[in-house]
Amino acid sequence: MTDTAAPNPDLDELARELDHAHVFHSWSAQGSPPQLTIAGGKGTKVWTHGGDEYLDFSSQLVNVNIGHQHPSVVSAIREQASLLSTIGPPIVNLARGEAAKRITARAPRRFHKVFFTNGGADANENAVRMARLHTGRDKVLSTYRSYHGNTGAAVVATGDWRRIPNEYARGHVHFFGPYLYRSEFWATTPEEESERALQHLRRVIESEGPSSIAAILLETIPGTAGIMLPPPGYLAGVRELATQHGIVLILDEVMAGFGRTGRWFAFDGYDVEPDLITFAKGVNSGYVPVGGVLIAEEIAADFDAKVFPGGLTYSGHPLAAASIVAALDAMESEGIVDNARRVGAEAIGPGLEALAEKHEIIGEVRGEGVFWAMELVADRATREPVAPAVVARAKGELAARGLLAFTAENRIHVVPPCVVTDDEVGQAMDIYDEVLGLDLLG
Amino acid sequence: MTDTAAPNPDLDELARELDHAHVFHSWSAQGSPPQLTIAGGKGTKVWTHGGDEYLDFSSQLVNVNIGHQHPSVVSAIREQASLLSTIGPPIVNLARGEAAKRITARAPRRFHKVFFTNGGADANENAVRMARLHTGRDKVLSTYRSYHGNTGAAVVATGDWRRIPNEYARGHVHFFGPYLYRSEFWATTPEEESERALQHLRRVIESEGPSSIAAILLETIPGTAGIMLPPPGYLAGVRELATQHGIVLILDEVMAGFGRTGRWFAFDGYDVEPDLITFAKGVNSGYVPVGGVLIAEEIAADFDAKVFPGGLTYSGHPLAAASIVAALDAMESEGIVDNARRVGAEAIGPGLEALAEKHEIIGEVRGEGVFWAMELVADRATREPVAPAVVARAKGELAARGLLAFTAENRIHVVPPCVVTDDEVGQAMDIYDEVLGLDLLG
Repeated sequence: MTDTAAPNPDLDELARELDHAHVFHSWSAQGSPPQLTIAGGKGTKVWTHGGDEYLDFSSQLVNVNIGHQHPSVVSAIREQASLLSTIGPPIVNLARGEAAKRITARAPRRFHKVFFTNGGADANENAVRMARLHTGRDKVLSTYRSYHGNTGAAVVATGDWRRIPNEYARGHVHFFGPYLYRSEFWATTPEEESERALQHLRRVIESEGPSSIAAILLETIPGTAGIMLPPPGYLAGVRELATQHGIVLILDEVMAGFGRTGRWFAFDGYDVEPDLITFAKGVNSGYVPVGGVLIAEEIAADFDAKVFPGGLTYSGHPLAAASIVAALDAMESEGIVDNARRVGAEAIGPGLEALAEKHEIIGEVRGEGVFWAMELVADRATREPVAPAVVARAKGELAARGLLAFTAENRIHVVPPCVVTDDEVGQAMDIYDEVLGLDLLG
Repeated sequence: MTDTAAPNPDLDELARELDHAHVFHSWSAQGSPPQLTIAGGKGTKVWTHGGDEYLDFSSQLVNVNIGHQHPSVVSAIREQASLLSTIGPPIVNLARGEAAKRITARAPRRFHKVFFTNGGADANENAVRMARLHTGRDKVLSTYRSYHGNTGAAVVATGDWRRIPNEYARGHVHFFGPYLYRSEFWATTPEEESERALQHLRRVIESEGPSSIAAILLETIPGTAGIMLPPPGYLAGVRELATQHGIVLILDEVMAGFGRTGRWFAFDGYDVEPDLITFAKGVNSGYVPVGGVLIAEEIAADFDAKVFPGGLTYSGHPLAAASIVAALDAMESEGIVDNARRVGAEAIGPGLEALAEKHEIIGEVRGEGVFWAMELVADRATREPVAPAVVARAKGELAARGLLAFTAENRIHVVPPCVVTDDEVGQAMDIYDEVLGLDLLG
């Protein structure tokens, strides 16, 4: 429990009342509002006003990479709030420059500039816009299993000049990415999946017309869609296709970036360099809303003399910038990214493998770092996914035992903060073990 | 100057260097990066690291309604940062409920629920989404002179189920709003402008087909587009047309709301009630990035049993929520909204009228509260707007005399914080007077 407040379950009840009366919630039916109140946290732990503790193996929406309430990030926010809480994007601010410097320092050498946004969605919006303006082409290719954000209309509703170069949200084409466990290509090995997925993408590009395609937009490792690590050669093959046809390669590192995989960027593990990189979440663990686009120099140069037709009031917000500086510095000096890699290899991976050995309901486990998925299946042979109610029940049973889980479709994602300890992984594995041993299908 | 730091012009230089090396800027050509660094502020004043002070008559991007560094908002951010900096939207949090309660308390009685976003753009995105789902219709009508935000494609790029109900960013139709000084309707009085603008809108609705129209999306008072106060009867007429045809009326109060006009909402002055209200900026003066949609009960009720297909990682962010609570409480207890009204009526309005008497270059002044525009014209008779270079020069001359101005097209917008004093308005008027007396057209 926190040492800053005495337990007070009445505040949990008040918070619930206010929430249910006045808060409209994301991606949900409002008649089944959330019940759990969280008042504080530290590292991998969070707690209610009443003092009930939970292990956060969701990192909320897979964003709290540095853990809850990291003292140096909290201090940086407090200090910047006292100095200057807000300043507009057309004014220079030191915290913003320091943040951009630290972000570019971790990117490949062609990346000198950062365009800051409010989150991952508008990072992708702006990356798509840059790719279209860079290529003079319209279509954007992305996969059927992906998530890139929730916006899509406001600038087209805009009436002034800013609308004109932005009359998009059309020209989107979807293709299938590699996913061996549920192959769309009748493949049986990772190598075959990779080759066939590339062949499929090549055929989509040829069929759509290469000269009509502005960008291929991919999560380096699709996150909410299932944490599918790209098979050997896939991303290099996509890069080659993009280069061959003058297509901009945008890698969405919103969920996979800044430590989640045990690397600064997920693509660092795949010997590939994109043209645009989008980020959010892990860059400051969501302590202040922020996202952005890292821009390769040949695309940034397009806008040296020409106006870039995109922007937002809170671009490069000083509170967000200060939190990025502190978060990246602490992740570096405390070896937090290394910890994610090590814990993944030594504790989470083996732990999940052991669970898969034991529980028939687990069809596959996969991942790296602190970025893992367990696929729950009704039948191991047919790989039939369990029904949504099964996952909902598992999530409830996990919470009842003090573990906050991230679930999506038929999967439980094991995605604790990068600071998670071996001991906490052990506790979590015991809880998963107990819950997966229940008659969930019954 | 601040008492928290000694003057240090070297930091201004460092900030500029980092900015020019690493920051990609909104709505601009990157080859002409910003030069002015701001390190701190208080009320209507901001200052550089070197100690140069400026009167902020821009409120940055017309968002710092409560003034810079309001102590109780800064304290609230600092306290919430220490308690819990971030928590995901599916978890109840007290600060979020308290913020939503205070926002709904200021809205008409039909508004009980708030959907929080990261800014004004995604507030409009989600309002449009709600209107489309509520009506089962596609088209969105908005005016040619408007600004509603910068997003427009990411969810259509999304590959999972969240894409399906969101395949929009098409179906946008634009019409002309009232703007007597540059009437599109050959009108000569406010009453005539209002009537004819309504007749034009009625004809657009009839021609597009009323049953195809989901929403009319309007800034209550268009902001960046020129601060055109709606003429008598116009908004009531739009409301009547919307009701008659089952069209959702969305009023965008992102810039006009939360004190800017001297009222909590701009529409409070026009005897009209929308169905959805979007907000950002003034709700917490941008101290933490946030926006949202206020939802009338009949639309909110659609999603009691049905999933609302929209959301975002930072929806209802606790730091943003805490800053809203503090900002709205302080604005109430300190009479800040009343101050905006009074200063507008007693100081800014008369001051600008006096300038218009004196300077031929001013074609019209208009506004209310701390929300005013001066139209600069090359010729009063033809109303020919001055060239962009003239406004750029005026902006530079104003800055050289210690005033940060907001400019758009041929206009200077006089938009200080709501806490501005009569004395500061007097100083500003002297500076405007001096600059408008230069041979700007020469």
